[in-house]
Amino acid sequence: MSFDVLQEKIKAKKNPTVAGLDTRVEYVPPYLLKEYTDKYGETLEAAAGAILEFDRGLIDALYDVVPAVKPQAAYFECLGWRGMKVLEELIAYAKSKGLYVIADVKRGDIGTTATAYSEGWLGVTRVGSADCPVFDADCVTLNGYMGSDAIKPFLADCAARGKSAFVLCKTSNPSSVELQDMVAGDRVVYSVMGDLIQRWGAGTKGKYGYQALGAVVGATHPAVLKELRRRLDGVFFLVPGYGAQGGTAADVRWAFDELGRGAIVNASRSILCAWKKTGGDGHDYREAARAAAEKMRDELKEYITVM
Amino acid sequence: MSFDVLQEKIKAKKNPTVAGLDTRVEYVPPYLLKEYTDKYGETLEAAAGAILEFDRGLIDALYDVVPAVKPQAAYFECLGWRGMKVLEELIAYAKSKGLYVIADVKRGDIGTTATAYSEGWLGVTRVGSADCPVFDADCVTLNGYMGSDAIKPFLADCAARGKSAFVLCKTSNPSSVELQDMVAGDRVVYSVMGDLIQRWGAGTKGKYGYQALGAVVGATHPAVLKELRRRLDGVFFLVPGYGAQGGTAADVRWAFDELGRGAIVNASRSILCAWKKTGGDGHDYREAARAAAEKMRDELKEYITVM
Repeated sequence: MSFDVLQEKIKAKKNPTVAGLDTRVEYVPPYLLKEYTDKYGETLEAAAGAILEFDRGLIDALYDVVPAVKPQAAYFECLGWRGMKVLEELIAYAKSKGLYVIADVKRGDIGTTATAYSEGWLGVTRVGSADCPVFDADCVTLNGYMGSDAIKPFLADCAARGKSAFVLCKTSNPSSVELQDMVAGDRVVYSVMGDLIQRWGAGTKGKYGYQALGAVVGATHPAVLKELRRRLDGVFFLVPGYGAQGGTAADVRWAFDELGRGAIVNASRSILCAWKKTGGDGHDYREAARAAAEKMRDELKEYITVM
Repeated sequence: MSFDVLQEKIKAKKNPTVAGLDTRVEYVPPYLLKEYTDKYGETLEAAAGAILEFDRGLIDALYDVVPAVKPQAAYFECLGWRGMKVLEELIAYAKSKGLYVIADVKRGDIGTTATAYSEGWLGVTRVGSADCPVFDADCVTLNGYMGSDAIKPFLADCAARGKSAFVLCKTSNPSSVELQDMVAGDRVVYSVMGDLIQRWGAGTKGKYGYQALGAVVGATHPAVLKELRRRLDGVFFLVPGYGAQGGTAADVRWAFDELGRGAIVNASRSILCAWKKTGGDGHDYREAARAAAEKMRDELKEYITVM
């Protein structure tokens, strides 16, 4: 239950970072993609094979530096069922290496549909009398626009299977202001959502004081991070927007509590594409990713000490 | 571009209904599921096979009654990659029968991630120099909580490939009030979203006067349908919540303009599970579904004449 498992992995590695596996085909070094297109032609099958090998290599390079990985479903879905098969394999592989896996799916639907999503990503799907695990991630991201009907089925799987979920609150992108910053009564929409997240997750706190339902709050709004950290006691934060999108270590420190807990910061491109900055042809993508992840860990250490 | 293609199919069949393929395993007649579990055991493979056959049978029974089908991604995702393979096959099959396919995915993400989702569902994924179609639906559902960053990549594929999209506005479920009905300035959140949808889709109107970006507005709020129909000129509505959720033909008429255009009403369970009410063992599921779809068409005809 709750984010205890994640918090312990963060503590063990002294690193509140999650590596986002946002693996666009263009992020795979050309030599590696070529191996697969030579074999399978310029097909979805080739792309899926190359991405599987690339991401497995990244996991091998990162598993003792970062506590968690966050595969982004879109980059697997855009390869069709072959991509989804790769995603299933990668989640299992990352877990076998002791990594906490956050499936970044941002699903949001209601009733039995939300139940089906939760079964697929966190729980099990029942076929006859058998319970079949599917993607079986440790955690998912969700969209709460439709209200608690979209969240409750996931909370049931969190309780039954020790999983957790993050709901979008204030996102890191420029157009997040269009809806999320609208004034609603004496609050703004993202505060309303934050309060809902806290309410929906009530009663699920673990030993570190954090409930099973967390919030996504972007690194690009440090003042908002500060405000929401104060407001949303017991709500774990997933913080995207570090690095490429402009968030710095000085910005994200506000996501953490006084013990350096309660948040995890995502970096994707800066790690995945680190090989593009070494001057090589990408054969060093593992070492480059590892060095980038270590650099980020050390940057965060300047501001955050996880206790 | 825009909803012209859908509007023409609606007109040809004199039926503004979409059949939702929300195919939970429990909706498959037991005799049919057994054929697959006998062969593959109680596995995801068996469930995927049974659902493929069931949904193909439904499409055969419905394709000359309804203009469109709406597969719900969750019920395929919860079967893992095998389910996604079935979904690819079903989308292609429905299109081969002349049906308009709305992939009910409710995706919402930003930047290159939104682009990847759009490539997967509406566009093509580029591998090397090849453009590979993936799910290739005619239309998707989207979640706009993150703002225009989550919508624009889809509009590009709509323009390039004659597709369209619906964004969640006011949903049919009870907890939609929690965020969507919050007062925001002189509007409520769902009106803000409706206005954003109209603004994001500006400049994409087709010959019937509807833009390529529509709105999801639930049948369970007739007063809201009336209000939003007046407010959102040129915005096509997808109306869930008919039947099982309580919406009636008298309720949903407010979604249409004075020419009976501009909206499509979804029904899922009442069609998929019609066989459960005939007293048989499900061998008549096709005929039962067809009869239910014809009944709904005739109910709507009492209130709406599509010109």
